[in-house]
Order: sequence, then structure tokens, then C-alpha cells
Amino acid sequence: MTGPAHEAHGPQLVSFTTDYGLADGFVAACHGVVARLAPRVRVLDVSHEIPPQAVRAGAEVLAQTAPYLPEAVHLVVVDPGVGTRRRGVVVVAGRGFLVGPDNGVLLPAAEALGGVRGAVALTDPTWWLPEVSSTFHGRDVFAPVAAHLAAGVSAERVGEPVEPSGLVRLPEPICEVDDTGLRAEVLTVDRFGSVQLAAHAAQLPWSPGTAVTVHEQPATVATTFADVAVGELAVLVDSAGHVAVAVNQGSAADRLAAGHGSVLDVRVATDRSPPRG
Amino acid sequence: MTGPAHEAHGPQLVSFTTDYGLADGFVAACHGVVARLAPRVRVLDVSHEIPPQAVRAGAEVLAQTAPYLPEAVHLVVVDPGVGTRRRGVVVVAGRGFLVGPDNGVLLPAAEALGGVRGAVALTDPTWWLPEVSSTFHGRDVFAPVAAHLAAGVSAERVGEPVEPSGLVRLPEPICEVDDTGLRAEVLTVDRFGSVQLAAHAAQLPWSPGTAVTVHEQPATVATTFADVAVGELAVLVDSAGHVAVAVNQGSAADRLAAGHGSVLDVRVATDRSPPRG
Amino acid sequence: MTGPAHEAHGPQLVSFTTDYGLADGFVAACHGVVARLAPRVRVLDVSHEIPPQAVRAGAEVLAQTAPYLPEAVHLVVVDPGVGTRRRGVVVVAGRGFLVGPDNGVLLPAAEALGGVRGAVALTDPTWWLPEVSSTFHGRDVFAPVAAHLAAGVSAERVGEPVEPSGLVRLPEPICEVDDTGLRAEVLTVDRFGSVQLAAHAAQLPWSPGTAVTVHEQPATVATTFADVAVGELAVLVDSAGHVAVAVNQGSAADRLAAGHGSVLDVRVATDRSPPRG
Repeated sequence: MTGPAHEAHGPQLVSFTTDYGLADGFVAACHGVVARLAPRVRVLDVSHEIPPQAVRAGAEVLAQTAPYLPEAVHLVVVDPGVGTRRRGVVVVAGRGFLVGPDNGVLLPAAEALGGVRGAVALTDPTWWLPEVSSTFHGRDVFAPVAAHLAAGVSAERVGEPVEPSGLVRLPEPICEVDDTGLRAEVLTVDRFGSVQLAAHAAQLPWSPGTAVTVHEQPATVATTFADVAVGELAVLVDSAGHVAVAVNQGSAADRLAAGHGSVLDVRVATDRSPPRG
Repeated sequence: MTGPAHEAHGPQLVSFTTDYGLADGFVAACHGVVARLAPRVRVLDVSHEIPPQAVRAGAEVLAQTAPYLPEAVHLVVVDPGVGTRRRGVVVVAGRGFLVGPDNGVLLPAAEALGGVRGAVALTDPTWWLPEVSSTFHGRDVFAPVAAHLAAGVSAERVGEPVEPSGLVRLPEPICEVDDTGLRAEVLTVDRFGSVQLAAHAAQLPWSPGTAVTVHEQPATVATTFADVAVGELAVLVDSAGHVAVAVNQGSAADRLAAGHGSVLDVRVATDRSPPRG
Repeated sequence: MTGPAHEAHGPQLVSFTTDYGLADGFVAACHGVVARLAPRVRVLDVSHEIPPQAVRAGAEVLAQTAPYLPEAVHLVVVDPGVGTRRRGVVVVAGRGFLVGPDNGVLLPAAEALGGVRGAVALTDPTWWLPEVSSTFHGRDVFAPVAAHLAAGVSAERVGEPVEPSGLVRLPEPICEVDDTGLRAEVLTVDRFGSVQLAAHAAQLPWSPGTAVTVHEQPATVATTFADVAVGELAVLVDSAGHVAVAVNQGSAADRLAAGHGSVLDVRVATDRSPPRG
């Protein structure tokens, strides 16, 4: 068989994560490209409100969501280097494929899906739109490749194999644990203002009810938000297995002035007695 | 038959309403759970931008939308008490099912769908994900149950029957009507800044063109926004049959400083003559 | 055959563009209406975050997206005149149909889809919901008509033919080109703060690297954002073939205080030497 005909059994599902926002037609154009090239493939939107060009936030949102999705081709476009020489790649994971720029955004999800099994650089324009713009490779390169893969084209056909060790990786987020607590980078901030840290459940040594401090503010280790009084800080294990800081019916991000890339100290409380006059 | 096999003819549709926002992967994880458990079931998103933990706003948005949807399992997660002892429930309505926390968020839609016919507490973990987090029951409990129901599992199988009279209800919103007008609570504020009141069309006694006041500001009873001049206040019956206050090409919410839970006075105008010097 | 039965081969796809936002149930109610009237028709959301009542922005977003979509019925509701005597129409384009208010919002996309071939005024309530509100024709008139068309009902059946020359048109956007540069109206501003002008690629006479000014601020003609230093202004051809102004990893809209309808001057730089003391 010659040319871009589709083989039989791909995942038939594309998950889609970008920083495009929903106010423009960018997301819809990519949906349309998939629908035209692979009419039977479904698209499941993960998020299009990754903060603009926030590569790590995009990587984390997908890594924490992908394990709950059916087997899929995960299309991810957070791409500050669009139009430059940065490569486009397919990463073959233990379960499914990831398509996007080679800037680190794909690898945390690949790890969450069974690890990196291989990678292919997108070097063959056969699988792209006929005209490729300089600023919208999501529409012109990545969505078409994802559509073809989801329809059953094998990864080896869309470009040149590359060594997984040569893929661009994000730096490891800061996460230091010692006897008195932990110091860890903020990975994501959710809509409720909960602040997720790079530390994992196993790195939170205290049981619920323990008094701690977060950046010197009093907090309590808890199981869920409502275990602390309204407006108080809770330190808990979130639904992705990370240590997180939340405020019951409030925003920890606002309270702590913390955002993507901030570093927070969580320490066991040594003295909460009020200052004496 | 034993275990969670799927019976034949469920609604095959899940409607989905939350306060999760679209910036995180929370909504997508729930979509993924449904797609994995019930691949043929479609998910129709109602809104994921209910203000955080705004139970009444979530209840109203679904109640006003559900009558226009096909028969469905309505999955609703606005859940400030997640992880505490608040129950999860299925409410069986005249047309369709509702799944979510027992905090009042389901009942207005159930009333709009033919009334409450029965209820089941979600007590059987057979129908949940194998691991249940403390903070994300949408993904781990409610979405799986909704997926199974939409695929045809009967409501009685997912838990213990409970008396509908024992379900948590939201307090009745304020709505007082007398000869001079009405005083009513704000149910929702839409994107255009139109302010919807708890009063119904039949409680608006004046015909279009009548001069009224809203919080002492002059307004006119109208049929549509554009019946008043640009920038002026209109009092009208909105598309859900409620009395609403709008500004033609502007925001009534801003003009009146009104939001969810505000109470507005709408009175017949007694004198609009300008003050004399 | 009598009544609204569906003929065989319509596009089976509705694209959907509004200024409704996603916080309310408006978009979902329209999805529900389509699902009830035409269960096999898919809906592809283009954007629901067109700025409120911004007819030109809605027109441009769809015109720039529609060429990438499969053949469809394009449902567009940006409708400041809802409930007044403005007409509803179907526009028959070279490829596909457009349904919405006759206020100019449909025509740029019709041009992008092969031009206007005909038009029909929505005069036959057979194809609407049984009850039509005064403020939500998207749900009650336009979505039902789009559903029927997508399911195969022919455009002639939904109303009275009208002359395309009698359709309301938006004024031509400002776009003046001369030897020293161009002066053009802003069509859209995207999530990244890139400002798209009414000028087309062919009207940008300078090659990449040329020093220019935008509103007297220094800028460089570029191929992609990252061709200029972080924080600097680039003038480039965007993915829709328009001249656009961007800031690498920043917002040109903020830098230039430019929004929908602003007019920007792009001029060849005559002297960039710093002022002398």
C-alpha cells in the first residue's frame, strides 16, 4: 500500500491539551482538521486553558489526567518555540502516543502512561496539511499527525526515529524533604486556589490533625478541605497523589501569594502559643 | 447475572455540570472515566464554570437547561463537603436520573424533569473506581455511577433506597409580591450581566412599557433588551420564565451591584418627574 | 411527504459560534435542542467566548476557522437585536450553510466558504421550537433550524428566499496601504495578546528583519514570535494570512493598548537612533 492510507486498529481517540484558550477559533480548527482527516476519531479535550506558554503546567495537567483516559493519541501544544528549529515529535508510551513539540511537555504524561518506549521526529510532510504556517503548528502539523496515528497509521511512518535520551526534558522540580518538613515547588494551582506541590504522598510524614506551618502560617494536616474550619489552611494529599495546600472555602494561592513555580515550605509547628505581652 | 454487567436500554447520555472550571484536567478525567466504563455513552457538558461551591447557582443552571436536553443521567458536582459524611445519591426523576452529592444541588432539576420519584444512596463501592480519593468524588464515585446508569444499570443496584423527604433541600429563595411590586432573590447572573430573580413570569403584573424602579433606579418593563435605549434598565421575562433585569448592551449586575444571593426590589414608578430646584 | 421529516444526506455536522460564554447553560440548551431534533448530528464548538455582542469579532473568528472544518451547517449567534424585527436567515455558501441573525455576522464566513449562493429568511415556525422566547432565539429558532438542515432538510423549506444583495453587511474594516506602510483596523485579539489587522499578507511589503514601527514603537518584521527577543514587538503574517502584531512571550494588545476596532499604524522605521541630550 502506498501513501497515507489508514491501517485498521488505532486508539480512535485523540486527547487534546493546549494553551490556546477558548475565545479564538484555534481549538476548533484543530478539531476540524482531525474530523476531516479521520472522521471516525473522537477528540476528548483535556484543557485549553493552560496558562500561555506554561510548559510545565501543561505537562502536569496531562500527566495527572491521562491515566484516567482511554488509550489515546495525546495531542499537546504548549509551544513557545513554534516556527523555530525545535522539533515536533511522537513519543510512544507504554499505553498510547503523545504528539507535540519536543520541549519537555510530553514526557511527564509518557511516564504516567508506562514510560517512554520510543520516539519519532516529525520530518515527513506527507502527514501534515499541505500549507504549514509559521505560528500554528497545532493545526498544520501536530493535529494532522495525531489524526493519522489515531486512525491507525504507525508511528514509524510519520518521521525519523530518535533516541528517547535525546528528547528535551524539563528540569526536575524542587523537592527537598528533611526531619522538619519539606520545601517543594508548586506544580499546579487549580480553580479553587489549591496549590499542588512537587512532593508526593509518601513524602508527607504527618498524620491528619498534625499542626504544621506553610510559609510560617498555621495549617493543619487533613484528609479533605472540610476537615479544617472555613478559611483555614489544610495540608493534604490531593487526588493526584501530591501534597497540596488548600483553604476550606477559600484560595490557598491567594493566601500564600503562590503560583506556578513558587516554592513553599511546609514545617511541623513548633509553637503556636500566642506571643506574650 | 452477577456483577456490574450492563443492561440494555439506558439513556446513553450523561449531562455534566460542575464548578471545576476548564483550566485543570478535572472535567477531562471524568469524561475519561465515563468513556472507559461506558464507551457508547455520550457526555454533554452543561457548564463547568458554576462559581466555586455555589450550590444554588449550579442547581439553577441545570434546572433551567435540563428540560431542553434529551433524556439523560445528569451528573452534577458542586460539592463543598466532598470527603465528609455528606451522602452521594441518585435521584430518580420523572424523566431521567440525577447523580451527585446530597446537598440540594440535584432537586431543582429533578422538579423540572417531572418531580422526584425516588432516591438511592451511593453505598455500594462496586460501582466506583477501585481507589477513591478524599477530594475528587466527581471522578472516583459520581462519574462511574453515572456511566453505569447511562449504560443501563438500574438505580436500585447502585446503593440503598432512601426516602425522598430525607434529601437535603436548599432553602426557598426569597420572593415576596404585593400591590406595589416585588422583592426577590437573585438566582443567576449571566454572561451579559442580566440578573435573574426568583420571581416567575406570572408574578410580574405590569405590561411592557410600564415605568418601574429597580432599587430606586428607573427601568421599563420590556419584551426584549433592545426595547429600551442603549444603557437603560429593562425588566423582562427571561428565556427560563423568570423575571430578570437587564441593561441594553450593558450589565445590570454591574449597574445594580447585584450578584448571586442579592435581593432586588422592583416597584411601580410613582413619580419620575425631575426634582424641582 | 408532509411535515418536518428529514431527508437523507445533509452535512450531519453543526459548527457553533456564540457570545454566550460557558458559565451559563445557554450553549448546552442549544446542544440539547440539536440532540433531540437530530440525534445523529454532531456539534463542533467553534467558540462561545466571542466578546458580548461583538458581531465583527464573531464573524472573523468563524471566517478564519470554517475553512478547516468539514462541510457543516454553521450556527452563529451574536445577536444584539434578538427579539426585535431583525431577520433570521440561512445563507447558502459554496460549501455548507450558515444560520443566524441577519446582522452581518454570517457573511465573512460565507465568503471564506466559496461565496454566497443564496439566502432564505426564517419565516416558517414549523422548524422552530413550539414556544419562542423573546431573548433566546439561539435555542428556540436558530438551533432547531440548524439541526433540521444538518439532518438533511433543504434550505428552501425553512422559509422565504431573499436576495443576497439585501442581506445586512458589516462595514468594510479600515485598511489603507501606501509607500510608507499601512494603517489598519484590528479584527481580532487572541489569547496571547496578538493583534490581527485587516491587512492581508500581500499588503505587508517588507521582508523579515526589516525595522518598522507600530504606533511609533520599534518593531521587527518576523516570521514567527520567537524571531524577536523576548518582550519585543514582531510584525508578521499570522495563521489566517493577516498582518498581525505580537510580542514574544508577551501581549501586544497590552503593549499597544489595542483592542477590537482599534486602528494601528505600521510604518517603515526611518531612524531608530536614541534622542540626543
